[in-house]
Amino acid sequence: MSQKHNTPKGTRDFSSLELKKREYLLNVLKNCFKSFNFQEIQTPSFENLTTLTGKYGDDEDNLMFKILSSGDKIKKADINAFKNNKLSKFSNSLSDKALRYDLTVPLSRFISQNLNDISFPFKRFQTQLVWRAERPQKGRYREFLQCDVDIIGESNILNELECIKVYDSVFNKLGLPKVDLRINNRQILEGISKLMKLDSVIEIASVLDKTDKIGIDGVMKELKNRDLSDESINQLKYLLNIGGTNQEKIKNLRKLFNSKNISLNGVDLLDKLIDTSQKFNFSNININIDLSLARGLSYYTGTIIEVSSPKEFSIGSIGGGGRYDDLVQKNNPKLSGFGISFGFDRIFMILEELKLFPNELDSSKSFLFLNFGLELDSILSYVNQLREKNITCELYPANAKIKKQLDYANQKGIDYVIIIGDEEVKSNSFKLKEMKSGNQSSIDISNLLSEIESLN
Amino acid sequence: MSQKHNTPKGTRDFSSLELKKREYLLNVLKNCFKSFNFQEIQTPSFENLTTLTGKYGDDEDNLMFKILSSGDKIKKADINAFKNNKLSKFSNSLSDKALRYDLTVPLSRFISQNLNDISFPFKRFQTQLVWRAERPQKGRYREFLQCDVDIIGESNILNELECIKVYDSVFNKLGLPKVDLRINNRQILEGISKLMKLDSVIEIASVLDKTDKIGIDGVMKELKNRDLSDESINQLKYLLNIGGTNQEKIKNLRKLFNSKNISLNGVDLLDKLIDTSQKFNFSNININIDLSLARGLSYYTGTIIEVSSPKEFSIGSIGGGGRYDDLVQKNNPKLSGFGISFGFDRIFMILEELKLFPNELDSSKSFLFLNFGLELDSILSYVNQLREKNITCELYPANAKIKKQLDYANQKGIDYVIIIGDEEVKSNSFKLKEMKSGNQSSIDISNLLSEIESLN
Repeated sequence: MSQKHNTPKGTRDFSSLELKKREYLLNVLKNCFKSFNFQEIQTPSFENLTTLTGKYGDDEDNLMFKILSSGDKIKKADINAFKNNKLSKFSNSLSDKALRYDLTVPLSRFISQNLNDISFPFKRFQTQLVWRAERPQKGRYREFLQCDVDIIGESNILNELECIKVYDSVFNKLGLPKVDLRINNRQILEGISKLMKLDSVIEIASVLDKTDKIGIDGVMKELKNRDLSDESINQLKYLLNIGGTNQEKIKNLRKLFNSKNISLNGVDLLDKLIDTSQKFNFSNININIDLSLARGLSYYTGTIIEVSSPKEFSIGSIGGGGRYDDLVQKNNPKLSGFGISFGFDRIFMILEELKLFPNELDSSKSFLFLNFGLELDSILSYVNQLREKNITCELYPANAKIKKQLDYANQKGIDYVIIIGDEEVKSNSFKLKEMKSGNQSSIDISNLLSEIESLN
Repeated sequence: MSQKHNTPKGTRDFSSLELKKREYLLNVLKNCFKSFNFQEIQTPSFENLTTLTGKYGDDEDNLMFKILSSGDKIKKADINAFKNNKLSKFSNSLSDKALRYDLTVPLSRFISQNLNDISFPFKRFQTQLVWRAERPQKGRYREFLQCDVDIIGESNILNELECIKVYDSVFNKLGLPKVDLRINNRQILEGISKLMKLDSVIEIASVLDKTDKIGIDGVMKELKNRDLSDESINQLKYLLNIGGTNQEKIKNLRKLFNSKNISLNGVDLLDKLIDTSQKFNFSNININIDLSLARGLSYYTGTIIEVSSPKEFSIGSIGGGGRYDDLVQKNNPKLSGFGISFGFDRIFMILEELKLFPNELDSSKSFLFLNFGLELDSILSYVNQLREKNITCELYPANAKIKKQLDYANQKGIDYVIIIGDEEVKSNSFKLKEMKSGNQSSIDISNLLSEIESLN
């Protein structure tokens, strides 16, 4: 491999040290999911395009990594579409599969495929990679790990709160500072869009979602470029400016919706959720109603939430989720779902910057037998016996210069080097050298195994 | 999701139970790799095509899953190539990335990208998915887990033996019966191809590799359709029919190569390897020289090995590997590599059929609090405290009919149900029902936590 090759844009390699940290974080997440009795599933890395498209929204569909048809299937290329510059149509004629874009739509496919084997409510967790062809930026990659928990088949708000409690427990275990969880309800947003005389909230969702970046005034400015009356925009401005406690926000909303004859369904649900949340004693989470929270994905129908990163970090949200009533199955039986997602890489970044990773990610010691080209039989037998006891050890794989072997030990972070050369063989002993201190002691060969075991 | 959706051809979902078994196998592998002091790395799921192509062979290149270019890049489509039925060229104009086909070429890219940060010999392990657009069959999928260990930067045969010892240790830990490890050397095959007056062994590698399926006579038959002299074919027939012990095979080869003035390099290496292997005391592996073993991948240059499945299984090899002298870097410094791969799914299948998975993959107990719509505060507090202690428990997420809640417990395999209804609240007690036996006992509420802890 003579020319220089690199990882593709937006993707990363992970070294051994990084993987130990990632494993720590993943274990905290998985152990927490398990203690809540969520059951793990895994799905394939790619799905049929018919499964994926039309669930997320048009912009998102364009960010999927599609897989090029292979063999003769590529003959289906729609050359006319290409000539007429219909690139999206051309592209669809070349592919019938795409890499996973999230874990929720594959879950929904999993359930519909295994409907008879699943008992509901189905609490599942899934920690797998997802891929998005977005422009890479700090904390945002094209390949990243997503960690999801979802409860399918039960619409009681206890499910929302169980999932929020998962956030709370994980953040608590990780030692994170208290974070804000913004909450809203798509039905409330539909109410607002009625007040604004829009067909659906989806029309303004992407603008609304920018509120925490560009502020309410910024949103107003963007909306003025659209075909909206001043009255509509002022209505929204009034709503977004409602301040006070969660209870006060709900009271104001209720009054307004009532006066305009708009359904109170979403307000009632949010009210009950906020009220019941007090029984859950969240220690690491502040729940705040935020009427500007819209969340882009088109499959949400009820509660939507998003977890902000701790105040000192400006890397956006570290998690989010919502209720999707119609994604899995609308009838026979209706399977409403609620689920949340952890932004693994952003949480990793925060742990790194706040120095919250444990000091000793791996407390076991490692040993290297120097290779003098002699006594291979007995050394190999020691190596064998130690590995049987799960002690990390190795024989240097060539009879190289001792300096080279010690350099190797140093660079690899080996804790102890074991020396059995001519001299040691004669005196029935071995030398044990602690690499960090440089301390070296001579020990009777018959004690080798017990001595090393005691150090591990 | 009203229409029926399925997993794409050759891919699978994994249920919670399957994942527990997969986790068990993966942990045996990883713990063994760690005890040998291999260091873990991970690489992205896709690589640039320039990194991947030309390393495996033409057939293999066509089996890669390519990723369709997105956005404006698709304008580069080579329509002329399509019109002239040059589908491979057309396909290449539509893609500049492909999914990982193995773990060795990405490792090689990793090393060349991080050359200054790696100390050699570099012992790495990697357990990640790979994708191949092959026709699915029993034990062969289009997405599967590969588990590799490689040692880069050292050509001593101790590296071959260290890796073979990894096989031995893993199979031993898993309780597998003794398996055959077939061994050959590409330099010996080059010698044979010289005897046959071929340019390179690559010309007959794919036919040779079929020997264990179609027999020596079958191979002879296939070769007769090619432009080869009878003398060449008879020469090969003689070689493949050499029987006896490994030592006898080497003696015969040595005599023949000597008489025809063919380099003895490969024979010497194999001889030394077989000789030294005796010091390693393999308990689960028989090493057998097999001159018909060729292995398709074009990057191999020295020792090649393949592990057969236990005799009663006809699912092909469960692992293989080899030495690749020129893949990573030919000069400054030369980085010779040797590595092996475990066929995770086939080993899984064997463990399943031989009933070698441990009976208790997960020994911890699970608890369900029935939901009567009352006393939520105290129940949530119990749930909280138990989860803090990593005890798996949950509150049924709605005030549903008790039969429905008990059905849920049964189907999910919950071990104990905890009942705190009206009656229990009045008498300051709770009922504990063991689901398997149906046994139920009434216990003072103040002992709830200690009682459950004692059962876990």
